[in-house]
Amino acid sequence: MVINPNSSDCVTEAIDREVEPFRRYGDFTIDVCGTPGAPPGVSYQTDADVIGPMVQATMAREKASAYIIACFSDPGLLGAREKFDDAIVIGCGENAIFQAMTDGDQFGIISLSIFSTRRQRRKVRMMGVAGRYVGSRGIDSNAVEATSPELLDRMVRAGRELVDLGADIVVTGCASMSHFREPLEDRLSIPVIDPVGSAVSAAIGRCILKRRHGRASAS
Amino acid sequence: MVINPNSSDCVTEAIDREVEPFRRYGDFTIDVCGTPGAPPGVSYQTDADVIGPMVQATMAREKASAYIIACFSDPGLLGAREKFDDAIVIGCGENAIFQAMTDGDQFGIISLSIFSTRRQRRKVRMMGVAGRYVGSRGIDSNAVEATSPELLDRMVRAGRELVDLGADIVVTGCASMSHFREPLEDRLSIPVIDPVGSAVSAAIGRCILKRRHGRASAS
Amino acid sequence: MVINPNSSDCVTEAIDREVEPFRRYGDFTIDVCGTPGAPPGVSYQTDADVIGPMVQATMAREKASAYIIACFSDPGLLGAREKFDDAIVIGCGENAIFQAMTDGDQFGIISLSIFSTRRQRRKVRMMGVAGRYVGSRGIDSNAVEATSPELLDRMVRAGRELVDLGADIVVTGCASMSHFREPLEDRLSIPVIDPVGSAVSAAIGRCILKRRHGRASAS
Amino acid sequence: MVINPNSSDCVTEAIDREVEPFRRYGDFTIDVCGTPGAPPGVSYQTDADVIGPMVQATMAREKASAYIIACFSDPGLLGAREKFDDAIVIGCGENAIFQAMTDGDQFGIISLSIFSTRRQRRKVRMMGVAGRYVGSRGIDSNAVEATSPELLDRMVRAGRELVDLGADIVVTGCASMSHFREPLEDRLSIPVIDPVGSAVSAAIGRCILKRRHGRASAS
Amino acid sequence: MVINPNSSDCVTEAIDREVEPFRRYGDFTIDVCGTPGAPPGVSYQTDADVIGPMVQATMAREKASAYIIACFSDPGLLGAREKFDDAIVIGCGENAIFQAMTDGDQFGIISLSIFSTRRQRRKVRMMGVAGRYVGSRGIDSNAVEATSPELLDRMVRAGRELVDLGADIVVTGCASMSHFREPLEDRLSIPVIDPVGSAVSAAIGRCILKRRHGRASAS
Amino acid sequence: MVINPNSSDCVTEAIDREVEPFRRYGDFTIDVCGTPGAPPGVSYQTDADVIGPMVQATMAREKASAYIIACFSDPGLLGAREKFDDAIVIGCGENAIFQAMTDGDQFGIISLSIFSTRRQRRKVRMMGVAGRYVGSRGIDSNAVEATSPELLDRMVRAGRELVDLGADIVVTGCASMSHFREPLEDRLSIPVIDPVGSAVSAAIGRCILKRRHGRASAS
Repeated sequence: MVINPNSSDCVTEAIDREVEPFRRYGDFTIDVCGTPGAPPGVSYQTDADVIGPMVQATMAREKASAYIIACFSDPGLLGAREKFDDAIVIGCGENAIFQAMTDGDQFGIISLSIFSTRRQRRKVRMMGVAGRYVGSRGIDSNAVEATSPELLDRMVRAGRELVDLGADIVVTGCASMSHFREPLEDRLSIPVIDPVGSAVSAAIGRCILKRRHGRASAS
Repeated sequence: MVINPNSSDCVTEAIDREVEPFRRYGDFTIDVCGTPGAPPGVSYQTDADVIGPMVQATMAREKASAYIIACFSDPGLLGAREKFDDAIVIGCGENAIFQAMTDGDQFGIISLSIFSTRRQRRKVRMMGVAGRYVGSRGIDSNAVEATSPELLDRMVRAGRELVDLGADIVVTGCASMSHFREPLEDRLSIPVIDPVGSAVSAAIGRCILKRRHGRASAS
Repeated sequence: MVINPNSSDCVTEAIDREVEPFRRYGDFTIDVCGTPGAPPGVSYQTDADVIGPMVQATMAREKASAYIIACFSDPGLLGAREKFDDAIVIGCGENAIFQAMTDGDQFGIISLSIFSTRRQRRKVRMMGVAGRYVGSRGIDSNAVEATSPELLDRMVRAGRELVDLGADIVVTGCASMSHFREPLEDRLSIPVIDPVGSAVSAAIGRCILKRRHGRASAS
Repeated sequence: MVINPNSSDCVTEAIDREVEPFRRYGDFTIDVCGTPGAPPGVSYQTDADVIGPMVQATMAREKASAYIIACFSDPGLLGAREKFDDAIVIGCGENAIFQAMTDGDQFGIISLSIFSTRRQRRKVRMMGVAGRYVGSRGIDSNAVEATSPELLDRMVRAGRELVDLGADIVVTGCASMSHFREPLEDRLSIPVIDPVGSAVSAAIGRCILKRRHGRASAS
Repeated sequence: MVINPNSSDCVTEAIDREVEPFRRYGDFTIDVCGTPGAPPGVSYQTDADVIGPMVQATMAREKASAYIIACFSDPGLLGAREKFDDAIVIGCGENAIFQAMTDGDQFGIISLSIFSTRRQRRKVRMMGVAGRYVGSRGIDSNAVEATSPELLDRMVRAGRELVDLGADIVVTGCASMSHFREPLEDRLSIPVIDPVGSAVSAAIGRCILKRRHGRASAS
Repeated sequence: MVINPNSSDCVTEAIDREVEPFRRYGDFTIDVCGTPGAPPGVSYQTDADVIGPMVQATMAREKASAYIIACFSDPGLLGAREKFDDAIVIGCGENAIFQAMTDGDQFGIISLSIFSTRRQRRKVRMMGVAGRYVGSRGIDSNAVEATSPELLDRMVRAGRELVDLGADIVVTGCASMSHFREPLEDRLSIPVIDPVGSAVSAAIGRCILKRRHGRASAS
């Protein structure tokens, strides 16, 4: 179960396209759903605030053994983990950051805007990993626009600024940017992590571990 | 404007009692309101999640030059600041922590439960002040119960554990505990900060500063 | 009681001008005094060292319920708090930093010189809040010169460098810079905190709280 | 390819037993090998030092798309990542710590000895995640002995000490302790992470991601 | 030149006894002097504040190529370094902490009192090394009393508490405790660092380096 | 005993030249030896990994009361300290960093390459001193090449970048750069620390302290 926590169909579809190839591994069913009634994207902290309970309501309604909150802001993640403590709950943002810390030494985040940048800084501090974060650089955009192919140059510019700040790995800070991962990696010559692909593959790994244990590792 | 972000009238009344003496200073009007429809208290992260947007809705409805979110979890605080950027928005928890860092060297928090403890740890890390925090100790209670006089012994026990951990100042981690501040201070022999009183006095200071500047300092 | 810990009359007068409007709130008497015999300003660490005991002597001589040490270096602050533990003692620097952490996410400081910059870095580390500090940028000046109107352009340049480093709020790192707050805020388009105004309003808030408690919160 | 970096056959067999159930997912071949000539376990830092190049030699000899270094000390991990930069290289220790930071708020590690404890502290600091680590508690044992069933009581005692220090999740700090995970979880009533199972499932996730990308994410 | 920054002759004599054996190495002259007019010891922050300028005055009066400030609080150290930037200035406290971080992994400090403990915490944070500090434990004493042989049991008790907190090396937090180093080390079974001996030997090393360079390294 | 942990004779000779003047102080014998069979320099983490056990083997073979590992990467340092716990073991890198933290407020490192930079970052984090480190800047070189006089301009450029990042002291991140210390200091106008000279003088200080104690301080 992959939850796009915003109401934009184009974002839900972009996520679904990214998830598609993962469906052929093993016998896991992966559903992607949007969040009708939610804002079209998380631009401001208030968007994340209003979306959090909606994500938790979707999880209460649609039973699954694992949920992915497919928004870099991870709206509702911590409450969901506390409430659904026998399910695997993966936050796109948190998971991408841990992958970046595995694959590189210092990471940077390409963010949509200065408001995203501040949310990301707070998340990084809350995660207790600020010592390996060089910062975020914005591209003055939003989740819907990020599904279009136009943004690559701006992302490359933001990525190069992050490299100048010491990043040896870059995370795209939005769930709609999967299609930019490969060209961005080519242009920047350092690894680029897409939060959606990273989250889906991590969730499959966690589901395998859970079956192995015969129960949730975190129960 | 002091917002009790839960729906418990007894908590709203306790806050109002604590606020009363502050009404005699200067010419500021201080209103206290509850949040009908909200959970009776913030026990879990999901409670804080659901309350955040309600607090922001109250702020949109009731105009004031300063708002106090009278819950230690500061639900909706960051979004509110972003959205109402010409108002003063004080979070009870954040403000009490900064006062503790002014008056003491290492602070600890008396929390309602292990769930509150985890939220407090995350807040402290997010605030970037973990280096001066010795931890939280719970009393297995909730916001409504905390208005009753029965809890003092448990609070003293939690406070002493915090002192053993190195705290030289203690914060009561709930907006309903104001009446315990003085006896707790007497029993622990170190300063105790009540988030409500601290927030109201800080808000008055900020209002005076705002008038002085003729506009919001943070606009 | 506001103590200008240097011997420069022009600085004392500048502080007095800034304090004047605050005198009309409530029934608090606010006196401003200088420190005859002290250096004309805190340029070097040795200046702060020599001034610390002078500030404490002034406090021992002039009884007040609250003292503001009106120098960003907070000379003598920690010793004063230990010694006069039933009084409110506000340090201009420390207090401005906490206000900046309330109103913004990452703060920077406009400093007088590279020597001030190093003192500020040490203070920020000692306060345990380095995770939210982007740094200080100097204007090659001193406390006396900062009372003149000439410095605005240099301060704007320093402020812009701080913004480039990620600051979303800026603190003026000297008690003589109050008159620059408003034009600087206009030029930088982010909030600017003046340590004197911030300290006086915070002290009034703390005095109100102390009256409420009928004794010092930190006793 | 799972590399047991010590020369103890009983440890290699224990790892193989833990890995077995994972072989039925997908079409990945998982081989487990020991390191003849290495010390029987990593008791001291010098053991880890001598084993690092051996692990890297094994990797140069045995081609695989992913390698797991099945020792909590992650000997040779960072050099291996630098050298084999088109392969996935998972360190048991590092990976378990990131899983603990996903599933819990504060983690502790059950270590073999005081020497392991110091290595773990250094690793945690080097990873930049010390803010969420409560510490390690030793059981005065070694990797070979840890394959026997006798140690459970000592592990429970160590785990309880970690809980008292604030841990809400515990990691077993040795690759031979997989069979203790479930009983330990039952006794401690908080989640327990086994580094081997966690690493294998994470490696499968990463292999799926790599196939999806058609090349190494970190190339 | 070793400066005892307090006025107690017995402390000056104790330092001189500790320094004596170092006089036989090389051709360096080592003088020990007290600070007439200073408080008998640094018990409170105000003592350190008043002593700082006195130490700097002594340095201005007595020319030497290296100065040791023989008090764990390092009164006047930072100002002295700024002012006498062609001399070597060693602070007993700072130097002992760096030696502890070289010889051990986590250090603790045996302090005279709760006031010393707070100064030490602030110093450790200001030095930016809090991540390796387990804390300080007091013995309710003062610098003069510490020259007597009575305190060993209390120091052992404090040292054991530091070991329980995770220290593998202990620093005696006062310049009058040199004679306790060896018996304390025997009782605690971990290394104990005496700030005076450590500072003198480090100063000799630094003088040799300075001669080698033909000028101050830090000029 | 100074161990050059690589196999390049020119580096061994450069170290010997730097050590020579220190031989005239006191009665200590200082031998310099290379490491036949080791890589010509530590370019990659795998070089450091392979060299660590060789350094420890040299120490086991050649008895001395103090050893200096004359490579900025400190290969084998931590294992050596654990194993030879009655000897003084100085790591060039670690020791230079502590000297930099004594003489300056924020330090930067001139590194050979991006690979060295990453090792340095990890070392700084592992040492727990990242709060005072502005970063490393590379000169695209290696240990052998660094013995030639050609590199000064590149080092000056790297040094200036570090100053721009806030460094007030710079460390040369390689044991072959001693001859650049003085000209670099002249060009940068801030102190420059050479790890070899710093380590030798510190080792002499520690040997004097050890004789004073009649046994190893850290035994």
